[in-house]
Amino acid sequence: MASVADIGVSAFINILSAFAFLLAFALLRIQPINDRVYFPKWYINGSRSSPRRSTNFVGKFINLNVTTYLTFLNWMPQAMRMSESEIINHAGLDSAVFLRIYILGLKIFVPMTILALLILIPVNVSSGTLYFLRKELVVSDIDKLSISNVRPESLRFFVHVGLEYLFTIWICYLLYKEYDIVASMRLHFLAAQPRRAEQFTVVVRNVPHITGHSFSDTVDDFFQRNHPDHYLCHQAVYNANKFAKLARKRERLQNWLDYNQLKFERHPEKRPNTKTGFLGLWGEKVDLIDYYKHQIKEFDKRMSLERQKIIKDPKSILPVSFVSFKTRWGAAVCAQTQQSKNPTLWLTNWAPEPRDVYWRNLAIPFVSLTIRKLIISLSVFALVFFYMIPIAFVQSLANLEGLERVAPFLRPVIELKFIKSFLQGFLPGLALKCFLYILPTILMIMSKIEGHIALSNLERRTSAKYYYFMLVNVFLGSIITGTAFEQLHSFLHQSPTQIPRTIGVSIPMKATFFITYIMIDGWAGIASEILRLKPLVIFHLKTMFLVKTERDKVRAMNPGSVDFPETLPTLQLYFLLGIVYAVVTPILLPFILVFFAFAYLVYRHQIINVYNQHYESAGAFWPHVHSRIIASLLISQLVLLGLLSTKKAANSTPLLTVLPILTLAFHKYCKHRFEPAFRDYPLEEAMAKDIMEQSTEPDLNLKAYLADAYLHPIFHSFEEEELVEVKDRVDKHQAQTASPLTSEISSPSPSHLVYHPTSPPQHVYHPASPPQHYYQPPTPPDYFFPPHSPSYYGYHYEN
Amino acid sequence: MASVADIGVSAFINILSAFAFLLAFALLRIQPINDRVYFPKWYINGSRSSPRRSTNFVGKFINLNVTTYLTFLNWMPQAMRMSESEIINHAGLDSAVFLRIYILGLKIFVPMTILALLILIPVNVSSGTLYFLRKELVVSDIDKLSISNVRPESLRFFVHVGLEYLFTIWICYLLYKEYDIVASMRLHFLAAQPRRAEQFTVVVRNVPHITGHSFSDTVDDFFQRNHPDHYLCHQAVYNANKFAKLARKRERLQNWLDYNQLKFERHPEKRPNTKTGFLGLWGEKVDLIDYYKHQIKEFDKRMSLERQKIIKDPKSILPVSFVSFKTRWGAAVCAQTQQSKNPTLWLTNWAPEPRDVYWRNLAIPFVSLTIRKLIISLSVFALVFFYMIPIAFVQSLANLEGLERVAPFLRPVIELKFIKSFLQGFLPGLALKCFLYILPTILMIMSKIEGHIALSNLERRTSAKYYYFMLVNVFLGSIITGTAFEQLHSFLHQSPTQIPRTIGVSIPMKATFFITYIMIDGWAGIASEILRLKPLVIFHLKTMFLVKTERDKVRAMNPGSVDFPETLPTLQLYFLLGIVYAVVTPILLPFILVFFAFAYLVYRHQIINVYNQHYESAGAFWPHVHSRIIASLLISQLVLLGLLSTKKAANSTPLLTVLPILTLAFHKYCKHRFEPAFRDYPLEEAMAKDIMEQSTEPDLNLKAYLADAYLHPIFHSFEEEELVEVKDRVDKHQAQTASPLTSEISSPSPSHLVYHPTSPPQHVYHPASPPQHYYQPPTPPDYFFPPHSPSYYGYHYEN
Repeated sequence: MASVADIGVSAFINILSAFAFLLAFALLRIQPINDRVYFPKWYINGSRSSPRRSTNFVGKFINLNVTTYLTFLNWMPQAMRMSESEIINHAGLDSAVFLRIYILGLKIFVPMTILALLILIPVNVSSGTLYFLRKELVVSDIDKLSISNVRPESLRFFVHVGLEYLFTIWICYLLYKEYDIVASMRLHFLAAQPRRAEQFTVVVRNVPHITGHSFSDTVDDFFQRNHPDHYLCHQAVYNANKFAKLARKRERLQNWLDYNQLKFERHPEKRPNTKTGFLGLWGEKVDLIDYYKHQIKEFDKRMSLERQKIIKDPKSILPVSFVSFKTRWGAAVCAQTQQSKNPTLWLTNWAPEPRDVYWRNLAIPFVSLTIRKLIISLSVFALVFFYMIPIAFVQSLANLEGLERVAPFLRPVIELKFIKSFLQGFLPGLALKCFLYILPTILMIMSKIEGHIALSNLERRTSAKYYYFMLVNVFLGSIITGTAFEQLHSFLHQSPTQIPRTIGVSIPMKATFFITYIMIDGWAGIASEILRLKPLVIFHLKTMFLVKTERDKVRAMNPGSVDFPETLPTLQLYFLLGIVYAVVTPILLPFILVFFAFAYLVYRHQIINVYNQHYESAGAFWPHVHSRIIASLLISQLVLLGLLSTKKAANSTPLLTVLPILTLAFHKYCKHRFEPAFRDYPLEEAMAKDIMEQSTEPDLNLKAYLADAYLHPIFHSFEEEELVEVKDRVDKHQAQTASPLTSEISSPSPSHLVYHPTSPPQHVYHPASPPQHYYQPPTPPDYFFPPHSPSYYGYHYEN
Repeated sequence: MASVADIGVSAFINILSAFAFLLAFALLRIQPINDRVYFPKWYINGSRSSPRRSTNFVGKFINLNVTTYLTFLNWMPQAMRMSESEIINHAGLDSAVFLRIYILGLKIFVPMTILALLILIPVNVSSGTLYFLRKELVVSDIDKLSISNVRPESLRFFVHVGLEYLFTIWICYLLYKEYDIVASMRLHFLAAQPRRAEQFTVVVRNVPHITGHSFSDTVDDFFQRNHPDHYLCHQAVYNANKFAKLARKRERLQNWLDYNQLKFERHPEKRPNTKTGFLGLWGEKVDLIDYYKHQIKEFDKRMSLERQKIIKDPKSILPVSFVSFKTRWGAAVCAQTQQSKNPTLWLTNWAPEPRDVYWRNLAIPFVSLTIRKLIISLSVFALVFFYMIPIAFVQSLANLEGLERVAPFLRPVIELKFIKSFLQGFLPGLALKCFLYILPTILMIMSKIEGHIALSNLERRTSAKYYYFMLVNVFLGSIITGTAFEQLHSFLHQSPTQIPRTIGVSIPMKATFFITYIMIDGWAGIASEILRLKPLVIFHLKTMFLVKTERDKVRAMNPGSVDFPETLPTLQLYFLLGIVYAVVTPILLPFILVFFAFAYLVYRHQIINVYNQHYESAGAFWPHVHSRIIASLLISQLVLLGLLSTKKAANSTPLLTVLPILTLAFHKYCKHRFEPAFRDYPLEEAMAKDIMEQSTEPDLNLKAYLADAYLHPIFHSFEEEELVEVKDRVDKHQAQTASPLTSEISSPSPSHLVYHPTSPPQHVYHPASPPQHYYQPPTPPDYFFPPHSPSYYGYHYEN
């Protein structure tokens, strides 16, 4: 058990490393050469197009202004300068709400820290048992400040119970207020949004197949019959997964070609070549530039074949459709109601915004979804509780004996004591580290298999899974030593009343561990977040090898976005630690406070200067944040109950049993009170916006506005004549659809797939211009994706 | 432990008593004097108006036809004669679906019984351990046929596991098919229904209070703004609870008056009189007829004052409204969508049919609902687990010593051995019996406090609570001896894996108990159900003392309705017993089969001839039935798991763990697949019905049709001029409402409270005609309520 001195050392090291990171950041960020890494948001915004610090040659790369080095912490006040409404305009509501979580943390924990330190420390310290009773045991100084120090059967436990009540009320009050504010912020944000395609559009899944009718006809028929006054048009979804895969491969080849061409330009004396065999070690020697050019040509052929197939084959139309309505009211109605007798058909939901759509999952049928959910929830359970098994297996493979058997020539090196101990300490850890590093990716893939159709939803699901993992493996795993599997075993064989006791007893003893954890993961981790080491390296590698044009530079910039799947669960873990330890070991609270304050500053800076969210969910993650804090409250109450029952505080314990019930009731109330605002679009709002728009723009051509909003992004790369062909085919279907009954109600000639020849010509694919990138989406930053989503459909830039 | 001979005796006794009931029924039902007790449905239907058996005087009361006595079981084939669709027409879908549960029971258990008896009995009997190992223990013969007889670690357990799989698959298959059929029956029934007020109406709760506006204006405003194309009119709800209470009291006085007048007519020599003091023992002597007449006059005054208050006071309009739409589509949309930014305001739901509305609960605000739900769920938990505590208290008060202390003069009588033992055996039991008798009433009151607004929903909730009570106190309580409170204690202090073991071990030993239970509660209980002893007695008492006119006779008839809150949980208990014991002690299955077959016949007869459902929920209880059978499956799987783990059948146990997961997944799938059909009205259906109606009746005056469908029933008793006054007041409000923006969209002059002077004059209250009943609803049978709903608002006939 760590003493106060140990913690001091740990704190010193971590503060030092945090400062080192900050210093490095301060130095690197003012170098013009790094400007695109540390201020990409301003480039994307269009308010900056090149670093404007100096005019001479060296000044273009290195900052020569000495005064700027002296004020190395001035990013902090800069970060605070923007108001919340400015941040909403600048970075979107998601980012603003994300920052509010940190503020909520500060609001919760500042008064709690003061109160707990002022009241509990004196109560715990005076007349403690630990001084007198078990001098022989190695007891940490921290423990003397904790509840462990109070004599069993003491009346002082009433103070702890009272504070638990007070804290619960305080947290619930703040949570209620915050939920209220966030919900109204969301509604205001949605109300203030300009006209957007998703406001009018509903995604319809599981369109039934009617023989002799295409899906387009079926959709048209159905909505003209059942929403005659509101239905406008719809957009069919094409299965372009294979094409997207080809496009991705071709993009990779193009990168290699660019790289080699650049290499050749810089060293014109030597034309790059390689051997065709494995890793270029043997085989026929080829000229690389010609080789890649040839390969790309091959791919172009295959892709044009695939394109033909998508256009010609009616099977490439999926049983999914984006249905647009004349009014927001009509879309809100359709999204919230049940359409068909068979509730597994015609599933309607709000369409995610176009850049938020995860195209691959659109075509999953209903039965499959149920099975997928079952399989994934079982897998997550297995992953959370049994993840140590495969890692232990890998570790046992990677131990020294195994290594010696495989490579006997290494024996003399391995047998050296220093190297041996290093390897023995290092190899098993490496396997675990690797696993933890790829964990978010694994969880994201799982969420994708589950079948959610919006990226925002995928990220929320991933975040939930990550939270369960952290709760079991970091929180419980640290308290009850042993693997999660062992914990599960002991939980299954203990009585339900025993579990809180087991946890409750060991919780005060683990305070020092968690203090260290907060310093390493919280303080130093956040400081390294601001440094952006990985993007920095990648950016410089790319500018060195790939960047030729200004546009390439923009693409190499990759600002990324707030990594919700990782940051939200981490944050929630800190809330859990703070709430659980507030009454047990209040000395932990200041460390949490520092984390919240520091992380708030860092993320405020990052959101203002770096991150560029690739979708906007209008704070849709808030209900999750809320319910996880409630869960933390419940855990803290149960743990305190268990702890007090081992302390024989029979008088005060029954008082505590009421608290979880009240907390749950509060949660249920909040859920009913606020959650619908995050799920449904109220008709009142929709109608108000419709009326306003009608009065300001009475002759708006909504159909033209919506025409290709939800066009599968692959079509933006199609050639003009092909698109016309697609359109023709759809129109022909159209002609035969409209039945005599519905045609008189419906709007004339709905066209659900319209090509705009006026779109900028550079967005269209021209095979004759190889140096240009194959695919260029209309608004590049929209198609950036976080590094952990490699399997995202197609418009994914290699980092 | 009972031997086979004991069970034989028990079976003999129960079959005998069942036959006695049946015989009594056969004798009583063919007496013309009882015709209204055993065939009330035909009177209500209008197909029978008086018993038409004989013409001479004695024949009017007693059946003199000897041949009818010989065929005393011929009600059984009679009951089977009606087809299902005829039953739907005759008694509604609820009854038809209710009968399907019994058929489902037969479908499930007939093949299971055959298979289990053929396969399991030989497997269990041969080479059993019970023969050889513990001869000294008193082992029941039944146990030799059960799984207890199989040697531990035997490979034979694979047979049991295999059968459990087979049974689960079979039950799931049948459940899926049945859910499908019931869901489509429901949709067909709803689609085939003629035009009904509830199809166009939505109940809106929590209308916000806007100062300076009445609730009526607010509702009108809101829906004209947000549903401009569909909103038709609305009906305000008046707080008439106090008035209803007065009406109820007045009705009781009227009954007494009738009784005394009748007595006087029969014995004109003696005018009935009483003393005004306690129980008529002392005080001033009064003439009873004059006394009641005077009292009724007093009440009439108070009631007219109260009426004035309801009409004049704007506070008597509640923040609730029945909003009607021009089309079913509009109503379906409004019911399924969220109206307001604040999800606690403007809560919309399908309106229950008018006779299904529970008026008292309409005005409960949202916050109160959350608190009520919390309190009631805590109370139900307490009731289920701690109900023995107050009963034990009453029992301890009611024991003999207590009695002797209170009434020493009784000592010589009590000390007689025979009487003493009788009292000691009887008194404690009486307290329990009383409690169990009033339990459904208590649960119904709890459900009412919870705040549901439809009687059908109240009954479903009560049924759920009753099921929990039976599950814990009958099923678990019989298996783990000791009170439910002791069980709870042991569950809390056992590990989760230990609980199935504890239950699993004792389950085979309790088979004989449950066989006896099935015979007493199932066989004899159902036979007594057909006898209708209580209604029979009450009917004859009423005809003797109260009935003067033919209409009084109709009212005294009280056919009642299927008592869902009690019968559904009982049925579900039988499913549970059958499914749990199918693999463990298959000899129990034939008893269950007999129950299902016999109960099916009895309820078919009762539904055809007796019961008159007072509402129609279109089979809304099916999802509950489905999920409870699934729960039974899960319980059976866990119990078998526990049982096998004590039998050290390590090879076969892991096989079983997959089953609960698959069963849960199946349940989830069914929930998604079918439940929306029981909750929402699909737009497709609504639109189809709208279009059909438009084509058949293009010039329908819907407003007139809907005008007073949801008028609070109290208004039917108002005088004409008062209703006009109410109408005027509403119209005045109307005039000032319609804002310039909405009035042009809305339909002209919406009137939400229209009085129909054409309604039959006998429905209006005339104080000048005292012998006539004060309140007479337009269609009397609509206002019959089950005997356990004494607190139902007003139109409740005293039995």
